Amino acid sequence: MSIVNPGPKYPPTKGEVWPKPQHETTELTYYTFDPSNFKVKVTNNTCDILTSAIERYSYIVRSLKPQRDQRPVSRTERRQRALQAQTLKLGVLQELQVQLTEPCEDYPHLEMDEKYRLSVSAVSILSSSSVWGILRGLETFAQKFYISDDMNELRINTSVVEDFPEYAHRGLLLDTGRHYISVPNILLTLDAMAMNKMNVFHWHIVDDQSFPYQSEKFPDLSLYGAYHSSMVYTKDNIAQIVEYARLRGIRVLPEFDVPGHTRSWGNAYPNILTPCYRGNEVVGLGPMNPIRNITYKMIRDLFHEVQARFPDKYLHIGGDEVEMLCWRSNPEIREYLQENGLKVEELHALFMQNTIPLLADGSKIVVWQEVFDEDVPLTSDTLVQVWKNDWVGEMVKVLEAGHRVLFSSAWYLDHLGAEWPTLYVSDPRDMVRDATGNDTLTAGVIGGEACMWGEMVDDRNVISRVWPRASAVAERLWSAPKSSQHRRYYFEMSPQPEVYRRMEEHVCRMNRRGIAAQPASGPGFCLV
Amino acid sequence: MSIVNPGPKYPPTKGEVWPKPQHETTELTYYTFDPSNFKVKVTNNTCDILTSAIERYSYIVRSLKPQRDQRPVSRTERRQRALQAQTLKLGVLQELQVQLTEPCEDYPHLEMDEKYRLSVSAVSILSSSSVWGILRGLETFAQKFYISDDMNELRINTSVVEDFPEYAHRGLLLDTGRHYISVPNILLTLDAMAMNKMNVFHWHIVDDQSFPYQSEKFPDLSLYGAYHSSMVYTKDNIAQIVEYARLRGIRVLPEFDVPGHTRSWGNAYPNILTPCYRGNEVVGLGPMNPIRNITYKMIRDLFHEVQARFPDKYLHIGGDEVEMLCWRSNPEIREYLQENGLKVEELHALFMQNTIPLLADGSKIVVWQEVFDEDVPLTSDTLVQVWKNDWVGEMVKVLEAGHRVLFSSAWYLDHLGAEWPTLYVSDPRDMVRDATGNDTLTAGVIGGEACMWGEMVDDRNVISRVWPRASAVAERLWSAPKSSQHRRYYFEMSPQPEVYRRMEEHVCRMNRRGIAAQPASGPGFCLV
Repeated sequence: MSIVNPGPKYPPTKGEVWPKPQHETTELTYYTFDPSNFKVKVTNNTCDILTSAIERYSYIVRSLKPQRDQRPVSRTERRQRALQAQTLKLGVLQELQVQLTEPCEDYPHLEMDEKYRLSVSAVSILSSSSVWGILRGLETFAQKFYISDDMNELRINTSVVEDFPEYAHRGLLLDTGRHYISVPNILLTLDAMAMNKMNVFHWHIVDDQSFPYQSEKFPDLSLYGAYHSSMVYTKDNIAQIVEYARLRGIRVLPEFDVPGHTRSWGNAYPNILTPCYRGNEVVGLGPMNPIRNITYKMIRDLFHEVQARFPDKYLHIGGDEVEMLCWRSNPEIREYLQENGLKVEELHALFMQNTIPLLADGSKIVVWQEVFDEDVPLTSDTLVQVWKNDWVGEMVKVLEAGHRVLFSSAWYLDHLGAEWPTLYVSDPRDMVRDATGNDTLTAGVIGGEACMWGEMVDDRNVISRVWPRASAVAERLWSAPKSSQHRRYYFEMSPQPEVYRRMEEHVCRMNRRGIAAQPASGPGFCLV
Repeated sequence: MSIVNPGPKYPPTKGEVWPKPQHETTELTYYTFDPSNFKVKVTNNTCDILTSAIERYSYIVRSLKPQRDQRPVSRTERRQRALQAQTLKLGVLQELQVQLTEPCEDYPHLEMDEKYRLSVSAVSILSSSSVWGILRGLETFAQKFYISDDMNELRINTSVVEDFPEYAHRGLLLDTGRHYISVPNILLTLDAMAMNKMNVFHWHIVDDQSFPYQSEKFPDLSLYGAYHSSMVYTKDNIAQIVEYARLRGIRVLPEFDVPGHTRSWGNAYPNILTPCYRGNEVVGLGPMNPIRNITYKMIRDLFHEVQARFPDKYLHIGGDEVEMLCWRSNPEIREYLQENGLKVEELHALFMQNTIPLLADGSKIVVWQEVFDEDVPLTSDTLVQVWKNDWVGEMVKVLEAGHRVLFSSAWYLDHLGAEWPTLYVSDPRDMVRDATGNDTLTAGVIGGEACMWGEMVDDRNVISRVWPRASAVAERLWSAPKSSQHRRYYFEMSPQPEVYRRMEEHVCRMNRRGIAAQPASGPGFCLV
């Protein structure tokens, strides 16, 4: 019960960028935009990624249209507009010069440079030594346009942005095993990720329930394992998705989770799974059979094919939630354990140890935290994804063991209670710093992922379920502040009105670009 | 951690009806469907409602197409199909005879008869003494078709259904004041309601934040009060929605909430609202001004226009959440209270007492529970909608005072935690019976409503947010069991596997009809 006037609690900002740039100065002067008198000039290096990005963003900027609102203006509104009208018009925006000072790289990768500098004036300049930085800067440039309050003009304020990400790995996990997600919705998700400067599409492609990955070596996997013949990802689909992502500076990190979460493999190849027993009776199939050679042969052959299709150096091999009860129930495995003097938990470690060398040469792996917890020897470039139990304690343990951490625990988008302001407040480096009292370990936290598990989402609601909630994670990972500020910061992380207001603008911006992000913070509307 | 084979936990039923009919016997024999050899014959009365319903359902049934699944069949599936193949084919469905034994009514209403009888055989018969019963029976008929396991045939089982609703008022509230919902999405919502045999569209059309109702008498209300000139409901839009609903046997119950929740009225007519004070300063506008004549004149004129557009006898006039603090802060009102020896709470009662006689002759009202709580004299045909505090205690109080109850407390769809199984278990008569130990009062609970408040939904997510959660409420209100069973029943209300399985089929059925209902209970897929 508050006694204030009607109107949205958090009126949207105008031309503010999401995620918030690291450094930005904005003047109270602006330029107007006239599509027929504006050009983009590439002054240095170029490549297909740059050319296609300029085409894409030119289209986006040109699609922004001032719209006359036929609604009459109330006295209050008129007063507000008069105030804002004090901003000074400097002229018409003429040109954007794109200065890429080093040659392009072909593929985005964990160590890629995303730093850029953008200065907006009559002749604006976007410069970076990396094509990935140029991509991020073009997104910023596009977001800085806004429609004037009288709906007559498209404007951009004089400003300078110097920007770079806080975390190198800013991911979104999408699970296409529990429900099939169509290729167009995956492409749309990549568009939304690019808008939020996220750079890793973690594709949890198969799971217990279905196997939509269509293999050339093992066509029966999807033939028997997909939900339906129409619900598969062909080689061409995957190539299209990888290329679409590449052009947006997004890595595609495929996950083939082993040895658990693999029941759908068993529709075609039951022999690679473990028969689970109740007494003397087989009651079903469980995780992969860790003591049979055919299991490893299949993994090796399939992974080689997968790694040929996905250019990323990293492969996510899962390793979570293995049903030890099933292994323990199986007489053949029990015998093996006895012969080798192993405990059933050690079998998981043994399985992972057998599996890791099967990957293509030079590949690196990501695993869920269980693999680390079970003492599997891991190389130092392995990424351990933390998702459960004592988050902070787990991160510290992994970091102390010399591995790098991906954080996801606080960012499970399938937990409906977690609206974006809740997701916004968790900063993994800040947690580690708090727990250890210093910055010795924080650099090892290389990023995190918002996780959209697929039990309750399909094509009908996946976009509105992910966005704008993943945007909160995106800003946390891009814009997290420097360590020296951390004490003050933790309090400040809880979103301030400025953040709500930027989020309002950002949701409407996503809607305008065809992404059905849901309302962010309460009553309101977007003009699309 | 369960050791069972893959596959959906709740495989969808085939040709089972949602909401579950009161009496149904189904044989293990079936007829196949061939659109070119099937006709619908009307044997008795007819009217525009009946003709258009037959056209609609003929299209729906004819759109169901057997679809070959190119996926090979695993051994387990083959075994299951062989078992099901034991159902006996009796021939081809030839005809549906529609026997409406009494003349049609024009408009759906609270006391309408929705009972019907459907017998399915080569010549099937649907009979009812009411066109509303025929509508419900046609929906049942359409839902009984299913595609055979080998995907080759469209089938319907021999069966007899005798069906009627448990509760007369089975509603869905949609709030178009916090976010504008487009007309096409409202029509789609009506389609979905008809599929779920819901019969009241409670249209919470305006609220504090916006006034999308376009009035002829007061065009400034939406001109200044709508979010945007494109976000209004014109007279024609309303006529279309009312007619679309009427043809589906759905009442449209408009709500114009007074005296609170009216700030958007004040954009054009600030004088009907109360200036709220902090000290001697006006800090904004609050609820309607209850001591000014212009307030009541405007309500009377607007309500007469509204009631001419909405044929339903009932008008919902709100009465919830009035900001007494604002009234109390206003010097003019404080003086009035002193002069008349009133407390500020009594002003609410006074306001409602002044307002109710302003309605068109013969109209009846629905109010939120606060109006009853504040001792406003209400006629016995007034419906009191219970939504907060001690649900059961409140219902009992309202019933003991001789009023009828609409229950909504457990069915707020904006509460995200409430997945459909949670919504499914609340039966308002059962609660009253439990509290009072007998059935004296239960008849006064005439129904309930699922409430989709609009703070966090707009066109992008409203359909998937409402469905299938409102379907749970729909079945509770249609299929609630007889009182004698209630003790046994309360335990049984928690959805059993059969309910989950029917829900799975129902969600896919909604998807096939273009309603983007979200997944119901976990991993799976729908063929659309």
